[in-house]
Amino acid sequence: QNKARLLIHCPDQPGIVSAVSEYLYQHDANIIESSQYTTDPKGGEFFMRIEFEAGDLDSKKEELEEKFIPIAKQFAMDWRFSYVYQVKKMAIFVSKELHCLRELLWEWQSGDLTADIPLVISNHEQAREIVESLGIPFYYIPANKDIRKQVEAKQLQLLKDYQIDFIVLARYMQILTPDFVAAQKHRIINIHHSFLPAFVGAKPYERAYERGVKLIGATSHFVTDDLDEGPIIEQDISRVDHRDNSEDMKKIGQSIERSVLARAVKWQLDDRIIVHKNKTIVF
Amino acid sequence: QNKARLLIHCPDQPGIVSAVSEYLYQHDANIIESSQYTTDPKGGEFFMRIEFEAGDLDSKKEELEEKFIPIAKQFAMDWRFSYVYQVKKMAIFVSKELHCLRELLWEWQSGDLTADIPLVISNHEQAREIVESLGIPFYYIPANKDIRKQVEAKQLQLLKDYQIDFIVLARYMQILTPDFVAAQKHRIINIHHSFLPAFVGAKPYERAYERGVKLIGATSHFVTDDLDEGPIIEQDISRVDHRDNSEDMKKIGQSIERSVLARAVKWQLDDRIIVHKNKTIVF
Amino acid sequence: QNKARLLIHCPDQPGIVSAVSEYLYQHDANIIESSQYTTDPKGGEFFMRIEFEAGDLDSKKEELEEKFIPIAKQFAMDWRFSYVYQVKKMAIFVSKELHCLRELLWEWQSGDLTADIPLVISNHEQAREIVESLGIPFYYIPANKDIRKQVEAKQLQLLKDYQIDFIVLARYMQILTPDFVAAQKHRIINIHHSFLPAFVGAKPYERAYERGVKLIGATSHFVTDDLDEGPIIEQDISRVDHRDNSEDMKKIGQSIERSVLARAVKWQLDDRIIVHKNKTIVF
Amino acid sequence: QNKARLLIHCPDQPGIVSAVSEYLYQHDANIIESSQYTTDPKGGEFFMRIEFEAGDLDSKKEELEEKFIPIAKQFAMDWRFSYVYQVKKMAIFVSKELHCLRELLWEWQSGDLTADIPLVISNHEQAREIVESLGIPFYYIPANKDIRKQVEAKQLQLLKDYQIDFIVLARYMQILTPDFVAAQKHRIINIHHSFLPAFVGAKPYERAYERGVKLIGATSHFVTDDLDEGPIIEQDISRVDHRDNSEDMKKIGQSIERSVLARAVKWQLDDRIIVHKNKTIVF
Repeated sequence: QNKARLLIHCPDQPGIVSAVSEYLYQHDANIIESSQYTTDPKGGEFFMRIEFEAGDLDSKKEELEEKFIPIAKQFAMDWRFSYVYQVKKMAIFVSKELHCLRELLWEWQSGDLTADIPLVISNHEQAREIVESLGIPFYYIPANKDIRKQVEAKQLQLLKDYQIDFIVLARYMQILTPDFVAAQKHRIINIHHSFLPAFVGAKPYERAYERGVKLIGATSHFVTDDLDEGPIIEQDISRVDHRDNSEDMKKIGQSIERSVLARAVKWQLDDRIIVHKNKTIVF
Repeated sequence: QNKARLLIHCPDQPGIVSAVSEYLYQHDANIIESSQYTTDPKGGEFFMRIEFEAGDLDSKKEELEEKFIPIAKQFAMDWRFSYVYQVKKMAIFVSKELHCLRELLWEWQSGDLTADIPLVISNHEQAREIVESLGIPFYYIPANKDIRKQVEAKQLQLLKDYQIDFIVLARYMQILTPDFVAAQKHRIINIHHSFLPAFVGAKPYERAYERGVKLIGATSHFVTDDLDEGPIIEQDISRVDHRDNSEDMKKIGQSIERSVLARAVKWQLDDRIIVHKNKTIVF
Repeated sequence: QNKARLLIHCPDQPGIVSAVSEYLYQHDANIIESSQYTTDPKGGEFFMRIEFEAGDLDSKKEELEEKFIPIAKQFAMDWRFSYVYQVKKMAIFVSKELHCLRELLWEWQSGDLTADIPLVISNHEQAREIVESLGIPFYYIPANKDIRKQVEAKQLQLLKDYQIDFIVLARYMQILTPDFVAAQKHRIINIHHSFLPAFVGAKPYERAYERGVKLIGATSHFVTDDLDEGPIIEQDISRVDHRDNSEDMKKIGQSIERSVLARAVKWQLDDRIIVHKNKTIVF
Repeated sequence: QNKARLLIHCPDQPGIVSAVSEYLYQHDANIIESSQYTTDPKGGEFFMRIEFEAGDLDSKKEELEEKFIPIAKQFAMDWRFSYVYQVKKMAIFVSKELHCLRELLWEWQSGDLTADIPLVISNHEQAREIVESLGIPFYYIPANKDIRKQVEAKQLQLLKDYQIDFIVLARYMQILTPDFVAAQKHRIINIHHSFLPAFVGAKPYERAYERGVKLIGATSHFVTDDLDEGPIIEQDISRVDHRDNSEDMKKIGQSIERSVLARAVKWQLDDRIIVHKNKTIVF
């Protein structure tokens, strides 16, 4: 397809939109969708996502990017182009609970996730059947805290071999080392349950039940060194009441996790997410 | 304040964003927020809302608009500037049910609706006390279908005297004539209950109850000749169940009407709504 | 399992709860969950669902029901017992769109739908692969309005052969004859899209898009002769905006259809639904 | 009115419902609504709320309660009767932010809160005008941590003088002493903002903004010694995105606080809440 996206982040100042749109106009690029956001029109940070259409993107790509460099320099931009014809490669990591994996595979099968899924990695065997039935290579890499380095070395090799663009932790219940995370900055998407108030630590559903919460939630975020504290991509909740025991709450929570993670992954594939400090701008 | 908004609608074609942003840049206008939408990048309709900041808007206003004319012509634009310092004047029409009126007055009092409310018009006396207690003139104009023309003549005179920008029908239970509506095209906002499926005609809540609906909704829309069929601005629903009788459903419906109408009015005040054919683009 | 449910509907009058709970107490049945509803404590209709636990239900079943007859007579009850150990048999009818079928099969596979699915019937071949891959017999019965009687004769034979308790129309796009519907009174669950306002007839999503609706909904209901007008079991909506074209709206609509139908089917399996006139009581 | 409610909590065992419904039947009481919940039918805790109608409640009251004592003893019940004709007296405590107070007064004025509001107490003067304009006595009691005991002594005296049944903290920004809380066990309802994840401490909206949360919530709960950790009555959330700054988030949060607190207060007035350990059962 002849669609591409340009993502920009720079200090806000007059003339940015004018310069970028003039540039696109001169390269016969048709703007399909454009979103922008500024933290403060005076001295703030400026963010922009433009989706555009242009003929022969494959051959024009290099010239397009080269010609953009002076503009990027002028406004001190962080920027990247992304081309729809270059389908993103996404690895899925999973443990025993398969609800999030299933949801992603389902969406992928029905054509709603335009990604390649070159492999699934797991520290358990539960997911093998469903993954292989779809013709996706499944790698079983047992893991525990004592062999973390070796495990991650194998994983990194696979990510490299398959030229993976980003990783989805679809309920992968192993802690990643700071080295692993650093090597994949803002390229690891995680999902976890969330509550009001938070129940940090073990058995959160039982504690939520004991406290009588009326809402069960899920949060999808990029992984940073600070466990479960990375930039939030998407959140949602579902209503529960006293009749729901901790087992019911868990099922309800899984259902929200499915949809929240699927939305986050779609936005990632559509280049809709810009990370700024510890938050996301989702266009 | 030094804020203004520019709303544009024209056939989509390359160069629009470039021309408009260049123009703003040259007039030292800082873009605060910009939204655009195209029905189709090839031969579709293009819509844009830009909120910008510029010094001395009061004195620069005329020059600003004049200099925009050539651009507007070039792209065959429908367009309008709107200035935040020119607070919009909004008339409220109400009958006996006061829940929507109360919500608007509340939001206005607490500073969340930046509008002037120069008058409230009603065909009943119920609202007088609450309206006058806030120092707003209240006009009681009895109405029925036999004196519709005379009633509307009085109303139109008041709208003119008070230089009203738009009208909110906060549960005003009189049909407006095509002449009245034509004179206020896309300047009358209405609110009414909505159901899945629709229950057209009398006693909708009783029929919704008899059918056992699980959702009660409300729709806010611009008034056109086609009764309750004008462009939809906002909708929302609330969950009900078999325990809710038609009286309960009515209360729940009123609560949604309150919030749906308040959102629609806010968007109108913020110049966020563009009407296109029989639908709205809400930026 | 030793769980059972008792569903009751009768004219409201004093002493019902007392008589029923005394009866259960004397049969060593432990009430797990009890819900009741009356349209009016004076001269209204009374509805009740009791879930109870008792040992040896399989052998006690007959005595239990026999001893209930005098109470049922005294209060002029409609009533039925339902036993958890007798797993319900559910047939799924589907056409080309598989999203609702997939959701049901998924929930069934993951153990959240405690039903038997002895067969899937379709007037197209699209669903064969997914159905047979799960070991469920798939019956392809081409259909059109000219051969409706013959088609339904085949279907009825299959329903009889497999001793089906109820039918789920998971986007089955054929009209059923009054005879077929009459033979399965309140035993056919359908799902269809719903809008505020309703768009009856062809191409509803395109018309919803043209009207600029802000909500897309789905309704699950029992099928009656009055097409799409049977008692509503469940409804839900999702928010859309002007950026969603009719294709997007359709996808969003399908996602709501999935979850609304799955909830309706679960409630049916749990004997939570009582039909009264043209509405449901969902306990 | 001739309505009353009976609330029961006891160890679950066979025969409770039977005994209670037989007792009501013999006293010519008509059950209007009945809800029950058991944590576990074997050895769990049983909770029940029955709303019933009976003639001459005022004169029959004493006999009714006396005759219930043997049943209560037999099943080791916590229990209480509540009579609709005895309108509950509710005190509102407020500080500078008036949104929750306004919501409660609005609902009260429009007849949706069937309570008496004999007084409003505040440590600031902001609320005086709105409170006195409705004819409700307003008590200004300045407060700070050094004079907490004296302040609470005055408050307790007022609560006693006005025979207050329960207190609503409608954004009352003072910490209550353990003595005060102990004297009003499960009779103080509080409202506060809630986030996923939680942001404990100062400036929560700014920190929520910095973390880029996508949901803003509110929680209403009974006050216990453990600050903001009492049994949750109701929660809700609203969606936000990166465009909402901390000021916007605060406004959105206030809007949820309004509706969550109003629901919690209504349930309290309808005797729908039973506290068990650190959670609520809301019937």
